[in-house]
Amino acid sequence: MWIYEKKLQYPVKVGKCDPRMAKFLIEQYGGADGELAAALRYLNQRYTIPGKVIGVLNDIGTEEFAHLEMIATMVYKLTKDATAEQMEAAGLGAHYANHDNALFYHNAVGVPWTAAYIQAKGDPIADLYEDIAAEEKARATYQWLIDMTDDVDIQDGLKFLREREIVHSLRFRECVEILKEDMAAKKFF
Amino acid sequence: MWIYEKKLQYPVKVGKCDPRMAKFLIEQYGGADGELAAALRYLNQRYTIPGKVIGVLNDIGTEEFAHLEMIATMVYKLTKDATAEQMEAAGLGAHYANHDNALFYHNAVGVPWTAAYIQAKGDPIADLYEDIAAEEKARATYQWLIDMTDDVDIQDGLKFLREREIVHSLRFRECVEILKEDMAAKKFF
Amino acid sequence: MWIYEKKLQYPVKVGKCDPRMAKFLIEQYGGADGELAAALRYLNQRYTIPGKVIGVLNDIGTEEFAHLEMIATMVYKLTKDATAEQMEAAGLGAHYANHDNALFYHNAVGVPWTAAYIQAKGDPIADLYEDIAAEEKARATYQWLIDMTDDVDIQDGLKFLREREIVHSLRFRECVEILKEDMAAKKFF
Amino acid sequence: MWIYEKKLQYPVKVGKCDPRMAKFLIEQYGGADGELAAALRYLNQRYTIPGKVIGVLNDIGTEEFAHLEMIATMVYKLTKDATAEQMEAAGLGAHYANHDNALFYHNAVGVPWTAAYIQAKGDPIADLYEDIAAEEKARATYQWLIDMTDDVDIQDGLKFLREREIVHSLRFRECVEILKEDMAAKKFF
Amino acid sequence: MWIYEKKLQYPVKVGKCDPRMAKFLIEQYGGADGELAAALRYLNQRYTIPGKVIGVLNDIGTEEFAHLEMIATMVYKLTKDATAEQMEAAGLGAHYANHDNALFYHNAVGVPWTAAYIQAKGDPIADLYEDIAAEEKARATYQWLIDMTDDVDIQDGLKFLREREIVHSLRFRECVEILKEDMAAKKFF
Amino acid sequence: MWIYEKKLQYPVKVGKCDPRMAKFLIEQYGGADGELAAALRYLNQRYTIPGKVIGVLNDIGTEEFAHLEMIATMVYKLTKDATAEQMEAAGLGAHYANHDNALFYHNAVGVPWTAAYIQAKGDPIADLYEDIAAEEKARATYQWLIDMTDDVDIQDGLKFLREREIVHSLRFRECVEILKEDMAAKKFF
Repeated sequence: MWIYEKKLQYPVKVGKCDPRMAKFLIEQYGGADGELAAALRYLNQRYTIPGKVIGVLNDIGTEEFAHLEMIATMVYKLTKDATAEQMEAAGLGAHYANHDNALFYHNAVGVPWTAAYIQAKGDPIADLYEDIAAEEKARATYQWLIDMTDDVDIQDGLKFLREREIVHSLRFRECVEILKEDMAAKKFF
Repeated sequence: MWIYEKKLQYPVKVGKCDPRMAKFLIEQYGGADGELAAALRYLNQRYTIPGKVIGVLNDIGTEEFAHLEMIATMVYKLTKDATAEQMEAAGLGAHYANHDNALFYHNAVGVPWTAAYIQAKGDPIADLYEDIAAEEKARATYQWLIDMTDDVDIQDGLKFLREREIVHSLRFRECVEILKEDMAAKKFF
Repeated sequence: MWIYEKKLQYPVKVGKCDPRMAKFLIEQYGGADGELAAALRYLNQRYTIPGKVIGVLNDIGTEEFAHLEMIATMVYKLTKDATAEQMEAAGLGAHYANHDNALFYHNAVGVPWTAAYIQAKGDPIADLYEDIAAEEKARATYQWLIDMTDDVDIQDGLKFLREREIVHSLRFRECVEILKEDMAAKKFF
Repeated sequence: MWIYEKKLQYPVKVGKCDPRMAKFLIEQYGGADGELAAALRYLNQRYTIPGKVIGVLNDIGTEEFAHLEMIATMVYKLTKDATAEQMEAAGLGAHYANHDNALFYHNAVGVPWTAAYIQAKGDPIADLYEDIAAEEKARATYQWLIDMTDDVDIQDGLKFLREREIVHSLRFRECVEILKEDMAAKKFF
Repeated sequence: MWIYEKKLQYPVKVGKCDPRMAKFLIEQYGGADGELAAALRYLNQRYTIPGKVIGVLNDIGTEEFAHLEMIATMVYKLTKDATAEQMEAAGLGAHYANHDNALFYHNAVGVPWTAAYIQAKGDPIADLYEDIAAEEKARATYQWLIDMTDDVDIQDGLKFLREREIVHSLRFRECVEILKEDMAAKKFF
Repeated sequence: MWIYEKKLQYPVKVGKCDPRMAKFLIEQYGGADGELAAALRYLNQRYTIPGKVIGVLNDIGTEEFAHLEMIATMVYKLTKDATAEQMEAAGLGAHYANHDNALFYHNAVGVPWTAAYIQAKGDPIADLYEDIAAEEKARATYQWLIDMTDDVDIQDGLKFLREREIVHSLRFRECVEILKEDMAAKKFF
C-alpha cells in the first residue's frame, strides 16, 4: 500500500496562466508514453518479474506516480485561471465543453488513455525491454515538450523529469544484465 | 507523492491455485468499475474540486490503490502455479497466449482498461455523483464476484472491499451535503 | 417499438451559419455525457430494473432520443451552409476531411462514441445512481456550452435541455426512494 | 421525435432459459453489424442525404430500433432466469461479473459498441453503399446465428429479421438509382 | 509474400513545406476509409472468398499498399522541414508533442487506426459490398481532400488515387456479378 | 511499392482441423505484439529514421508481412473445415457469430487491432528500442503459443518465426550501435 505525503518530488514553478502549454503537457499525463502509462506498467509487471528486480520496478513505479502528480500540478496551474475563451484560444475548447477546466487522462489530441499502450508478457527480458523502450519514448516526449516552450520554469521541471527517465532507462538495462547473469549461472550449475 | 509501505491494507488469504476465479476477479483490477478506475478517477478530480472535500478524494483515491494491490495479489496467487493447460481450462487461454501468467489491466472479458470509463466535469456536484455511482457499481461487482465463489478466504477479502465501497459511497454523499450547505451559505450572504 | 412523429420536442432556432459552435455542441451528440449516451443507457437498463420504475426509464430514454434529434438539428443548421474553409477555420477541418458536412457520433475532440461511457450493473440502486450521475454530468456539459456562446437562440435551446436534465435527475432520485421503500417493506414482512 | 408504443414489431417467442444462445445473439444488439449500428447509422445520415431519400432513411432507421428491441427482448428472456452458474457455463461468466444478468451493448465477444463501426461521408452514393453493405453484413450475421440454434422459435424471429434486412438492402439500392437518375437529369438540363 | 521494389506506383510531387495539408491528408493514411484500411481489408478477406475472385482481392490489396506508401511519402514531404512552431500553427502541435515529425496511423483528428473500421463476414456478397462501400467512401474522402488544397501537385496525386478507387469499385461490382452467375449456375444444375 | 509473389516465406504444414489452436494463433495475426503490429510499426518509422538504418526497417517490415501471411495461412487451414459446432467448442463461437470462418485482425480474446499498440517518436534511439521491445515481446508470444500445442508441424512454423524475431532483435540492436557511433563521430568533429 502507499502512504500519501503532501509534497511534490520536485518543485513545480508555474508563474503564469498558459493553457496552450497545458494542452501539450497533458501528453505526459494521459498519453501513450506518459507518467500514468509508466507507473501502471511497472507496478503491474512486479508480480511475475524475478525477485531480484521486483524492488526496482516497485521503486520506479512509485516514483512515476510522483511524476504524474508533478505533471498534474503543472497542467492545473497553467489552466486554473483560464476563461472559456482562453481555453478555446489555446485549442482546449473541446476539452472545456466536456471537462471545464478539470484534468483528464487523455493525450494532447484528447484521446482517452488506454491500457493498449502498455504490455506485460510474463517473460522478464521482454518486459524489461518494454520498460527501457518506455523510458526512451518518455525521454523523447519530454524533449519535444521542452522544444515547445520558452518558459524557463516549465523547462526546469521538464528537464528534471527527462533526467529521471534517463536514469530509469539505465536501471532497467542493469536489470537485464542481472537477470542474464542469473540465467547463465543457472545454466552452468 | 506517495511512499510505498510493504504491506497490504487487509490480508489476502489464497490457499489454492484457482485460475477460474482469477479470470472473474480481474474485473475489479482492469474493469469499468474496478479499483484502477476508482483510484484514477478520484485522484484526478482532486485538482478542481472545492478545497473542503479535496482531502476526502485524496484519502479515498490513495486507499483505492491499496485495494488495487489487494486484487492484484489475489489474482497473482490464484494463478502463479497454473500451467498453460490450467489457464486454458479456466477460460484464460487467450490471456496466456498474450501475457503468460502476468497480470494485465483488462476486464474479465479481456478488454483493456480505458479512461472512457471515468469522468471529470469540473462541476463539483456532477463529479461527486460520478463518484457515488462508481462506488455503488463497484459494490455491485463485488457482490457478483462473491456469488461466483464458495472459497471463504476469497469471500472474506471481497467482503472487506465491498464494505469499504459502501463507506466511500457514504462519504461522497456527505461531501455533496457539505458543498450544498456551502453554496447555500454563499448565496445567503 | 417507436413511431416517428415529424416534429421536434422543442423548437430549434438557428439563425446563422456558426460551425465553431457546432464543433462544441457535438459533445452532446456523440460525447461521453451526451444525449446518445443517455438514451441508450436508460433503454438498455429497462430490462432488468424492477417493474415499478421501468416506465420512468422508458419515458426518459425515449425523451433523450428527442433531445438527440434537437442537438442533431442544431448542429446541422449551424454547419449546412459552411464551406470547407469555414469548417476548417472553426476547427472542423479534420471532421470535413472525413465526413464533409455530415454529422457523426463523436465528441467535440472527434473521438467516436463508445459504449464504455455507459453502464448497466443489474443492481437497481447502482443503475439509478449511474443515471443520476449521467444527468448531473449532462447538466454540467450544457452549462459549459451555454458559457461558450452568446447566441441567445442557441442558449434558449440549451437551457431547455439543461432544465430537462435537472428534472430527470430528480425523477431518478425518486426512483431510488421508491425502490428503497419497497426493499424495506419486503424486509419487514 | 419518437412516440413509444408498447408492442414489438414481431412477436418474440422464447420458451426456455438458454444463455448460450443469448451470448451469440447479443452480436446483433451491440456488435459491428447489429441493430444499434444500423439504427444510428441511418438516422445520422438523414441530415445530409438528398431530400428524395430522407424518408427511406428515417423509416428504416426507426424500424431498426424496433429490431433492437426485439433482440433485447430475446436476450432478456433467454437469460432472465439463468443463475450465475448457468451464465458461466454458457460463456457469460465475464459478462455476469460485470453486469449480472443485465444487457449491454457489446458484441458476442464482449467488446463494447463503438461508432467506429459506422460511417457518414456526406456523399450520398458513398453513404448509400455503406448502408447496402450494412444490410448485407447484418443478413450474414443472422444466417450465422440461425445456424447456431435449433430452437425453432428463435429461428422464426431471426428469419423475420433476416428478411427485413434483405428488403432494406433492396430499398437502399433503389435509392441509389433514384439519386443517379436525379444527378443525370440535372446534368442534362 | 511481397517483394519491395524501390519506386512509387505514381510520382509524388511536393514542392513546399505544408503541414496544414499533411494534417488532413493523414486521414487517408490512418483514417476509417484510408489506404491502410483498404489494404488490410482485402488481403484479409482473400482467405474465405471464392477462388474466382481471390486474385482481384489480392491485386487490389497489394495496390492499396502502394497507395499507402504514396500517401506516406506526401505527408513526409509536406512536414519534413516543418519546425515545431510550423507544426503547431498547422494544428499538428498535439501530434508533434507525441510523435515529433514522424508519421503515425491516425486520422486527421489524431485518433489511432482500429480494425473496427473494417469487416470480414465469410459471406462473399456481404464482403464484396463491404469493399464497394469502402471504395466509394475513399473516393469521397479524396474529393474532400482535393477541395481542401489548391496545390496542383498534391491535387494531381489525389486525383490519380481517386480514379483508382473508382476503378476498384467497378471491379468489385464485377466480382459480385461473377459470383451471382456462379451461384445461379450451381442452383440450375 | 510491393510486388506479390505467390509463395510463403517458409512452408506452412497443417495436417488437421484444429480451431482451438487457431483461436490462440490469431494473437500473432491481430494481437498487440503480432505480425501486423510489427510490419506496420517498422514501415511507418522508415520515413523519419536516419538513412543508415532505413534499409533494415524496410527489409524487416516487408518480411513481417510475409510472416503475417504465414500466420493467416495457418489460421485459415486450421479452421477452414470447422463446423459452427466445432468453432464454438474451440471458444470461437463469438467469432463465428460475427465472422463465420473468415479471419479478422483481432487478438486471441477477440479485441480488434488498434494502432495504440505501436509507436513512432521521431527519435531514432527511442524508435529502435520500441522495435527491440517489439521483437522480444513477439518472441515471448511465440514461446507461449509453442507451449500450447503438441502438433509438431505447427511448432515447426512457430519456431521458425520465433527464430526470425530473435534475428530481428539483434539487427535492431546493431542499428542502435550504428547510430550511436554516428552521433559520437558527429560530436567529435
